[in-house]
Amino acid sequence: MPRFRDTSLQNSKPSVDRKNRIKEPKNIMRTVDPAALEILEYTKENNIITAFDRWSAQQPQCAFGYQGICCRICFAGPCRIKGVEGPGSMGICGARDYTIVARNAIRMMAGGCSAHSDHGRELVEVLYHLAEGHAPDYEVRDPDKLRRVAKKIGLEIEGKSDLDLAKEVAEVAFEDYGRHTSEGCKFLKANICEKRIKKYEETDTMPRAIDREVVEVMHRTHVGVDADPVNLIFGGIKCSLADVTGEHISTDISDILFGTPKPVMSEANLGVIDPDKVNIIVHGHNPVLSQMVVDTARELEEEAKAAGAKGIGISGICCTGNEVLMRNGVPIATSYMAQELAIATGAIDVMVVDVQCIMPGLRNVCECFNTKLVTTMSISKIPGSYHFSFEDSKAKKSAEAIIRLAIEAYKDRKNTGRPVRIPQFKNKLMAGFSLEALLDLFAAINPDNPIKVLTDAIINGEIAGVCALAGCNNLEAVYEKNHTEIVKELAKNNVFMVGTGCVMQAAAKHGLLNYEAVEKYAGPGLKRFIDRLYEANKDKLSDKLPLAFHMGSCVDNSRILDLWTEMANALNVDVPKVPFVATAPEGMSEKAVAIGTWVVASGIPCHVGAMPPLEGSNLVWSVVTCIAHDVFGGYFILETDPQEAAKKLLAALEYRAWKLKVHMKAAEEYGTELCQAF
Amino acid sequence: MPRFRDTSLQNSKPSVDRKNRIKEPKNIMRTVDPAALEILEYTKENNIITAFDRWSAQQPQCAFGYQGICCRICFAGPCRIKGVEGPGSMGICGARDYTIVARNAIRMMAGGCSAHSDHGRELVEVLYHLAEGHAPDYEVRDPDKLRRVAKKIGLEIEGKSDLDLAKEVAEVAFEDYGRHTSEGCKFLKANICEKRIKKYEETDTMPRAIDREVVEVMHRTHVGVDADPVNLIFGGIKCSLADVTGEHISTDISDILFGTPKPVMSEANLGVIDPDKVNIIVHGHNPVLSQMVVDTARELEEEAKAAGAKGIGISGICCTGNEVLMRNGVPIATSYMAQELAIATGAIDVMVVDVQCIMPGLRNVCECFNTKLVTTMSISKIPGSYHFSFEDSKAKKSAEAIIRLAIEAYKDRKNTGRPVRIPQFKNKLMAGFSLEALLDLFAAINPDNPIKVLTDAIINGEIAGVCALAGCNNLEAVYEKNHTEIVKELAKNNVFMVGTGCVMQAAAKHGLLNYEAVEKYAGPGLKRFIDRLYEANKDKLSDKLPLAFHMGSCVDNSRILDLWTEMANALNVDVPKVPFVATAPEGMSEKAVAIGTWVVASGIPCHVGAMPPLEGSNLVWSVVTCIAHDVFGGYFILETDPQEAAKKLLAALEYRAWKLKVHMKAAEEYGTELCQAF
Repeated sequence: MPRFRDTSLQNSKPSVDRKNRIKEPKNIMRTVDPAALEILEYTKENNIITAFDRWSAQQPQCAFGYQGICCRICFAGPCRIKGVEGPGSMGICGARDYTIVARNAIRMMAGGCSAHSDHGRELVEVLYHLAEGHAPDYEVRDPDKLRRVAKKIGLEIEGKSDLDLAKEVAEVAFEDYGRHTSEGCKFLKANICEKRIKKYEETDTMPRAIDREVVEVMHRTHVGVDADPVNLIFGGIKCSLADVTGEHISTDISDILFGTPKPVMSEANLGVIDPDKVNIIVHGHNPVLSQMVVDTARELEEEAKAAGAKGIGISGICCTGNEVLMRNGVPIATSYMAQELAIATGAIDVMVVDVQCIMPGLRNVCECFNTKLVTTMSISKIPGSYHFSFEDSKAKKSAEAIIRLAIEAYKDRKNTGRPVRIPQFKNKLMAGFSLEALLDLFAAINPDNPIKVLTDAIINGEIAGVCALAGCNNLEAVYEKNHTEIVKELAKNNVFMVGTGCVMQAAAKHGLLNYEAVEKYAGPGLKRFIDRLYEANKDKLSDKLPLAFHMGSCVDNSRILDLWTEMANALNVDVPKVPFVATAPEGMSEKAVAIGTWVVASGIPCHVGAMPPLEGSNLVWSVVTCIAHDVFGGYFILETDPQEAAKKLLAALEYRAWKLKVHMKAAEEYGTELCQAF
Repeated sequence: MPRFRDTSLQNSKPSVDRKNRIKEPKNIMRTVDPAALEILEYTKENNIITAFDRWSAQQPQCAFGYQGICCRICFAGPCRIKGVEGPGSMGICGARDYTIVARNAIRMMAGGCSAHSDHGRELVEVLYHLAEGHAPDYEVRDPDKLRRVAKKIGLEIEGKSDLDLAKEVAEVAFEDYGRHTSEGCKFLKANICEKRIKKYEETDTMPRAIDREVVEVMHRTHVGVDADPVNLIFGGIKCSLADVTGEHISTDISDILFGTPKPVMSEANLGVIDPDKVNIIVHGHNPVLSQMVVDTARELEEEAKAAGAKGIGISGICCTGNEVLMRNGVPIATSYMAQELAIATGAIDVMVVDVQCIMPGLRNVCECFNTKLVTTMSISKIPGSYHFSFEDSKAKKSAEAIIRLAIEAYKDRKNTGRPVRIPQFKNKLMAGFSLEALLDLFAAINPDNPIKVLTDAIINGEIAGVCALAGCNNLEAVYEKNHTEIVKELAKNNVFMVGTGCVMQAAAKHGLLNYEAVEKYAGPGLKRFIDRLYEANKDKLSDKLPLAFHMGSCVDNSRILDLWTEMANALNVDVPKVPFVATAPEGMSEKAVAIGTWVVASGIPCHVGAMPPLEGSNLVWSVVTCIAHDVFGGYFILETDPQEAAKKLLAALEYRAWKLKVHMKAAEEYGTELCQAF
């Protein structure tokens, strides 16, 4: 393979086109998850409608919407781009394909940024209320992290109590949401390289305040405002950088309140459910709720036993599941797309949800199985479900009420003799790899400069680089097929993998987050690297290390940003020179759009395996897959075929690693300053 | 007509259904504006594409999008509600019609709120920069208004300089954008009745901070968050109340910086353009730009004359046009839908735009006529146009550059002998009715209690009540037909009319904003009332009063809120008891959706004459047309036929006036306290 060209940087359309995709027979089971397959048979036989049926019913999907060339921004519309010239090539206002595609895309970023940063705000409020004495059920569990974060954002830490410092940290975070000046968000600037700060300032993409950037995107996409696709996309980038600010706030404060994750063992897939326990699934995103449920459940274990149960069995779905997995080893029931199938086991007494990625379709399935669906947040209700208003001033009380509801539901379930079917599939996993935990592993080899263990392994060619796995499920792909194929292919090619979100739940369910997977799939260099890490740390680890390193929930992509920032700083280069790529094999949500965009703006090639609505404009397509590279160093790789995707990711890594080595050599010969331009 | 039933409060579908609407022949000229008709003939002959052609090309519009049952919030979609049961009755996530319709609707409110309040923020920044000495080209032109506003929002005004006070006002406004506590927006609470404050607090619709409410709407509508249509709509209402907060900030600070409008004479329609002048059209929304252009043009008049022109002719389109009409009597060229037709006169040298409602389609028409299209705001660019970055620190310099560009373009136009065709239609108008100006008129009759002149006229039956005219153009209706028919019908029935935005430009163009219209269309009571007002004020007025009172741009709907608040306070009732209705005869933009919603939440029946995308859910339809009344006292009247609409508006006024009289009588007999419950 010629190294002087980055073959991943391509303006060509993806290898599998839409026409082929929708010609696939509609009635196939669209998953490679054996547990999901088993339950899907059952739901099919019993006419229980799930997302899998609804996906089929939606085919063929509207081609205008799919390509992003449907505009519903004002109600003179809807308008659709129907041709390449004449009046039908524009909306009523005269907006062309590129304007419409760009506007729709950046509104998705605004949606994603709003979700992530509102999540962060919830945590800031808890921290602030705790400091003010109004959230008595919470505590600062990681005072060291509190001090690290405080120091990073420029606060004086000496001589201050935890609570005083917590309040100051919360105040800085609040400022990042509502500042009216333009010096830029502190939680962003404190966590990225100097060169990236400069880049964002030069390109007017440094977010001033999180909320303000969402509003600006909504304003500039209003009818008759911004028609320039490049200008629009830069606005979207600014908003996406506000998104990662909110994510970083979420991660930092979650760690402060609930502890910074350390390696932990657990299991994943529906087989983790024990029908003889009071079964509670925590689902959604925010640890403010799920952590309290987990903590409180321990205390109410005896009540469950008194009701005849073996105990309380908590398992997780989506990122609130990841939060309690990372910190408590709570098992993963399944991931986003199969959330209804978990209910269809018949063994769940209560599903308690907070915000984001909670299918409204759950309600009907819960009704079929008498599972109590409990919503907890005022902005997230589902008609016909139970609503327990969860406030931080009385968090424990709410958690107790929810658990007692589950105990009652368990009794009902046992009394009525409701049949349960648990597919006997589960896999062992190791999770808990906060950046601190990862660096701790590296430090056992190189205590003075831990990150150098990773960068040296790349420079020495032991590993090909790092890939971040992130994102959702999307039935446009076969559920969890992209995830697993890409992980295996990258492993074979010696890529060190970290990840977050539903992709890591997929990897866990398919047995890719344990050492057996290393033996089975890792290339020789990667295996050697992981083995070496384990050897240096084996006294403090309860098991061997996994094939891919689970870093947490989707807001914890901030940990991944910290990882490449550490690497860039260690290598004394800007992020675009670091052999680091990212993939969202089944991207689906607006949050994924926001994440993908700040990943690209950070200087990282980012693969997306389900097609975002961009195909309607060649101009926008070119900007995100090519031009972005010229400005930010990162770019999107839009490719729905997992094997092709893996090839493109590997090509990007190979090119970067080769270039880095040339750069290092030049730096050695001519000095760092001289070769920065290279 | 039976008075004990409000026949406008109806859950029935509108009298004209969509099927009939789209069966209308497509090639008819969709306007009643003779000037537009004349230019449309020309554009048709010469194959110049305008919005009128693009509207035809978009027919038939997508029925899913039109009804609001298309969801593109995540990219697993697009999803469409295809049936009433089975998997096709839901999106892939399980979202039903009511969730999808409600989510789409409140995202429109978020878009509208973002546009209005970002407009306000721009003004706050100018005021703040002025106070800090960084905006030397601006000044406090209305120090009295500054003091009134400062006092209203709770500031101490004694002994403070204008600039010190300006800074404090700006700081409170900034706080309303970015506050992290929940005591509610100051600029809202300072301007509404006590009872409304209580209502919003009870229903959790009091906005905490403007930007935050936009973010919350974007979050709660993200995939897998809020599925409850009523909860969603309440979230939208909170955001819409944030919208009016931003509007009030815009109006207040515009008045402080540029002066509070007073009655002023002008003209409207394309006939105002003089081909022998250097012609500049100001278009968009923000007076920060247009006012500076108007002021600077006066100073450069001689330069224009030196270039052979009769002078500089500025005219306006959309709300930035309304801003300079209200304060300077700058004539109106036309309204939103005909913005391209103004260019097609061939006589425009520069069109200078800021934000909102600027058709991207302008660019092509400008190219045909060699008109320079100048964009000025960083968030609002059009590919291929000139961009003059307009910053408040060097505002005058930018305005000069723009005017000099126009002078050069004028010379070109004259040298090339480009033909111009100005349709010879224009009408005289009186505008400039800020609330202060209106109250000043009333004060000539009742100096102690000016507003009582208006409320007494209603109680005495002289006039039927007040109707606010607001909103956009939408070719779903015949351009300006709904506007003019409704105004005439309400006038005949003695309704006192105030208005803002494009509807007032339509009224002006059609000669409805002058006294001749009073003679032609006003019912006897209304004529008597307007005559009486004139008689009391004739020494200070240069002409007789108009049929409808132009209160300004679309953010100046805040003046209308102030009007009904004055009336409610004077009558000692809550707003829903005031005989006041509103209509947006050709609603189109997201701003209109936000305005309509806070109008309803204020307790006012609000007609919309173009169908918003709500028909896809009977539940949501019922909530906005009926249930809203039970909670807030206001509700939407969705009706596309202007005659039917007028009937429903009159029915609502008649019912309210009758009920108010019963209430007043009861209050007299039994005391105010006792009959509040009535």
